[in-house]
Amino acid sequence: MSEKPISRFPPPELAGLPEDVRERIEAVQEKSGFVPNVFLALARRPDEFRAFFAYHDALMEKKGGLTKAEREMIVVATSGPNHCLYCVVAHGAILRIRAKDPLIADHVAVNPLKADVTPRQRAMLDFALKVAARSHEVDEADYEALGREGFSDEDAWDIAAIAAFFAMSNRLANAFSIRPNDQFYTMGRERRN
Amino acid sequence: MSEKPISRFPPPELAGLPEDVRERIEAVQEKSGFVPNVFLALARRPDEFRAFFAYHDALMEKKGGLTKAEREMIVVATSGPNHCLYCVVAHGAILRIRAKDPLIADHVAVNPLKADVTPRQRAMLDFALKVAARSHEVDEADYEALGREGFSDEDAWDIAAIAAFFAMSNRLANAFSIRPNDQFYTMGRERRN
Amino acid sequence: MSEKPISRFPPPELAGLPEDVRERIEAVQEKSGFVPNVFLALARRPDEFRAFFAYHDALMEKKGGLTKAEREMIVVATSGPNHCLYCVVAHGAILRIRAKDPLIADHVAVNPLKADVTPRQRAMLDFALKVAARSHEVDEADYEALGREGFSDEDAWDIAAIAAFFAMSNRLANAFSIRPNDQFYTMGRERRN
Amino acid sequence: MSEKPISRFPPPELAGLPEDVRERIEAVQEKSGFVPNVFLALARRPDEFRAFFAYHDALMEKKGGLTKAEREMIVVATSGPNHCLYCVVAHGAILRIRAKDPLIADHVAVNPLKADVTPRQRAMLDFALKVAARSHEVDEADYEALGREGFSDEDAWDIAAIAAFFAMSNRLANAFSIRPNDQFYTMGRERRN
Amino acid sequence: MSEKPISRFPPPELAGLPEDVRERIEAVQEKSGFVPNVFLALARRPDEFRAFFAYHDALMEKKGGLTKAEREMIVVATSGPNHCLYCVVAHGAILRIRAKDPLIADHVAVNPLKADVTPRQRAMLDFALKVAARSHEVDEADYEALGREGFSDEDAWDIAAIAAFFAMSNRLANAFSIRPNDQFYTMGRERRN
Amino acid sequence: MSEKPISRFPPPELAGLPEDVRERIEAVQEKSGFVPNVFLALARRPDEFRAFFAYHDALMEKKGGLTKAEREMIVVATSGPNHCLYCVVAHGAILRIRAKDPLIADHVAVNPLKADVTPRQRAMLDFALKVAARSHEVDEADYEALGREGFSDEDAWDIAAIAAFFAMSNRLANAFSIRPNDQFYTMGRERRN
Repeated sequence: MSEKPISRFPPPELAGLPEDVRERIEAVQEKSGFVPNVFLALARRPDEFRAFFAYHDALMEKKGGLTKAEREMIVVATSGPNHCLYCVVAHGAILRIRAKDPLIADHVAVNPLKADVTPRQRAMLDFALKVAARSHEVDEADYEALGREGFSDEDAWDIAAIAAFFAMSNRLANAFSIRPNDQFYTMGRERRN
Repeated sequence: MSEKPISRFPPPELAGLPEDVRERIEAVQEKSGFVPNVFLALARRPDEFRAFFAYHDALMEKKGGLTKAEREMIVVATSGPNHCLYCVVAHGAILRIRAKDPLIADHVAVNPLKADVTPRQRAMLDFALKVAARSHEVDEADYEALGREGFSDEDAWDIAAIAAFFAMSNRLANAFSIRPNDQFYTMGRERRN
Repeated sequence: MSEKPISRFPPPELAGLPEDVRERIEAVQEKSGFVPNVFLALARRPDEFRAFFAYHDALMEKKGGLTKAEREMIVVATSGPNHCLYCVVAHGAILRIRAKDPLIADHVAVNPLKADVTPRQRAMLDFALKVAARSHEVDEADYEALGREGFSDEDAWDIAAIAAFFAMSNRLANAFSIRPNDQFYTMGRERRN
Repeated sequence: MSEKPISRFPPPELAGLPEDVRERIEAVQEKSGFVPNVFLALARRPDEFRAFFAYHDALMEKKGGLTKAEREMIVVATSGPNHCLYCVVAHGAILRIRAKDPLIADHVAVNPLKADVTPRQRAMLDFALKVAARSHEVDEADYEALGREGFSDEDAWDIAAIAAFFAMSNRLANAFSIRPNDQFYTMGRERRN
Repeated sequence: MSEKPISRFPPPELAGLPEDVRERIEAVQEKSGFVPNVFLALARRPDEFRAFFAYHDALMEKKGGLTKAEREMIVVATSGPNHCLYCVVAHGAILRIRAKDPLIADHVAVNPLKADVTPRQRAMLDFALKVAARSHEVDEADYEALGREGFSDEDAWDIAAIAAFFAMSNRLANAFSIRPNDQFYTMGRERRN
Repeated sequence: MSEKPISRFPPPELAGLPEDVRERIEAVQEKSGFVPNVFLALARRPDEFRAFFAYHDALMEKKGGLTKAEREMIVVATSGPNHCLYCVVAHGAILRIRAKDPLIADHVAVNPLKADVTPRQRAMLDFALKVAARSHEVDEADYEALGREGFSDEDAWDIAAIAAFFAMSNRLANAFSIRPNDQFYTMGRERRN
């Protein structure tokens, strides 16, 4: 494993963290087999940690018209133009797993316009990319384009909110140089039959 | 008062909101004399509302090396290039009040490079604007530039985190067309003696 | 009042100015109650002063299909992307007064795409913003779009010429750091009934 | 000669123009042997014509620290990035003649950074290009850089004002599709010995 | 003639070059009356020289649906935004000669959107400019737009390949500061009758 | 394996290709175990195929101061901003293998500024990225920066030429939608001990 620091800011001692923060970290470790570095990097600010993951879960784990794979697709597509190594690599891994597609993450990260996605997903990504890069130009025509692909207004909110949340995450991970765990690079790359 | 909708998404009935959300809204109304539209616009998603304001308070109300006026200065400076009417107008009002300066918000919103700020504040804004616009280029030299103006590493985290949080807020307010309350436009414009 | 210099270049003594220049300055002072700083800043070059204000008046005071409020709207909308503090603040004040609308200037300065304007005014601003930012792409389709909203060819000339004139003004005010008078910040902000 | 229209707006009949405008046009024809199209294109608005050329002459014909060739160099360098065919071709011709250099105009129009100019001229062009493209970033360091090459503050004003004036001219010529006269393309291209 | 170096890298002695490279250079000298500097600048790397000119000839000299003038038009139009002095000046000369039009090269170099070209040529240039600047956005709609103007799929390949080849050439000429020969500036500028 | 077309243009029948082209394709198949799609996609134009691969080999296989891994690093770093899926994925695989580093390709593709590279390699990538994106700004200071890291002038030529060649390749692969072979995605991702 790399011996590089996981972030520009040293991570806290797990033992000294508030119990709820430590439990959240232990839960993800149990589930994934390792602790994604963003958990350790943000834990040194427990109040921000709690709000960040509460917001993350409210958007990424909720029920709704978007599949979990589609939500990750939004994350990877909008993180590419922000050059966020952590989000492209870590959420790329989650996207490959959730979409059961070993190629999709690289497609979406490098050029969503030529990615193997459905027309519905392309409309979703077009909206997300507009929110990420030029949100002041979003107008009713954008919502109508989503509607034509079967997205409800609540779905549109979800797409915009995920794009907005990762606009924040990308900037945190970049400014703090949060490093993706080595495990993410290879997860989900095996081909299913 | 304007009769324009406060957002593209209709606000919820206050009566139907979870109690903690309603109490938060009533508290801000009592303190400010009106409910800033962002509270109503986000309340239709209670979980997101709770996370958004918990995060906001963790960054904007905490103790630390930045004054409350300086935090608002970061908000206004980074919201300008994102063309976010809600954040420029609402946080511009708060900035004028906290800085006790009727001119500062327009300065910072239109062109932070020519604003009447101290060299220390200019360094703070330079860092915040870099996080907002090109976070992937942030490097150790940026932290050193902050250090030369007396900012600690914890202050640097605060500046970056505020810039990142409002990168999210700007995109939400723009994508949902959240309208600033009329009251904000004139707050804090009177000259103190 | 601020004691900051009104410009990077020191203003001339009024007494030493050519009579026509001094009279123009005294006239604006009588009408407005103060001398907008751009008059003092440019007066140190009397020939340029005369040409500048002759051009300004030919475009902004002439009869034609655009109201005076609409002309100021063009100024504010195109000055925003150029980050010109003087023009946004000073012409923002004039726009509020001429449009009898205390909110319109901030709308148009921060994001004309989401401003409370009529479809006709939106077409006018779209054309003006294109002339300001990418005039080499202006083509006959742009004139036709104006025509569909009832603008004549002479109106189109006016819109383009105002956008072009303030492309110049923005650059002068920025390069010379011309400071808006404190009075402009609050003019026209009271609500009419 | 081309039979293409000289501008999107039809030029006026010379006979119907105010006497001072007609005289100005006849004077340039006598001096140059033809009427540059910008004179005809703008003459349909006599007040604007008068102000435009008064301003032009105040900047381009005055005495001062810049040679006439250097003033034209500023025009060509700043008109290139604005893709203004009229200004690049017409002022390119004047630049070749005034600089007695058949190559300089293409150099400066295509890439001022690699043009055959003196370090002093390069500093002048750097400042002019900054005024043209990002005037809101101009600060005291830019004036000091000019000073180090021997430019006075009055020279700096001239450079900025010429760049600003042609920011306007470029937009007018582009928006109105003003066509350079065929004569300009070959003027000054012969090599001197 | 200029005594400036033809490139940042000194050209090789002709006598020491491999025979095929020297013969190619002598052939162009015989045909043109001088050796275009790009031949000398690249000859110091014979393998690269051979591949470069083999590629060039395969694209520029082959038979196909594009005239030789149209191919040069693509070169000039895409070299303008890359600020490549060598390609704009040298291929501008060739374009003037092949198109028998003394004005076309300046038109296309300064602003292809307002150049005197046919609708078919405009479609060709739109495609070439998209390949040059944002090739990742090219999609089937772009090929269809070419088809509507009568271009075959093989023509589309040619347009894209020429734009791509000169994306390379522009970067070589810029990075190595290859200087256009003085002869190119005036070639083809005389008017035909 | 994917059943998606390997390019927008159908590949030729191997049997019908000129013998040298077919042999080159068979050689790469023997060496790699599969035929990279760019060989098939370009083979329909044998002359262009020959020149492309001759140029490629002259730059990528030659001796010189850059290691083969460093050359691939330049390809991946410059292909990222061009959103070229083929080059990022295929050359990312080759980079991982040549550098014996399973993480380096994602680092360099997503954000070269935060990649785990040596200061020497960072200087190399800075120069390559400048040639790729703003070659007209390259000047002697850039060559000096390379020299300070021990690069010779011939190395500088190599870096620039590789960046330029892949500026072409990226545009070809994007315009023709050349698809990376599935094999590339996983090559070289295993960790060495």
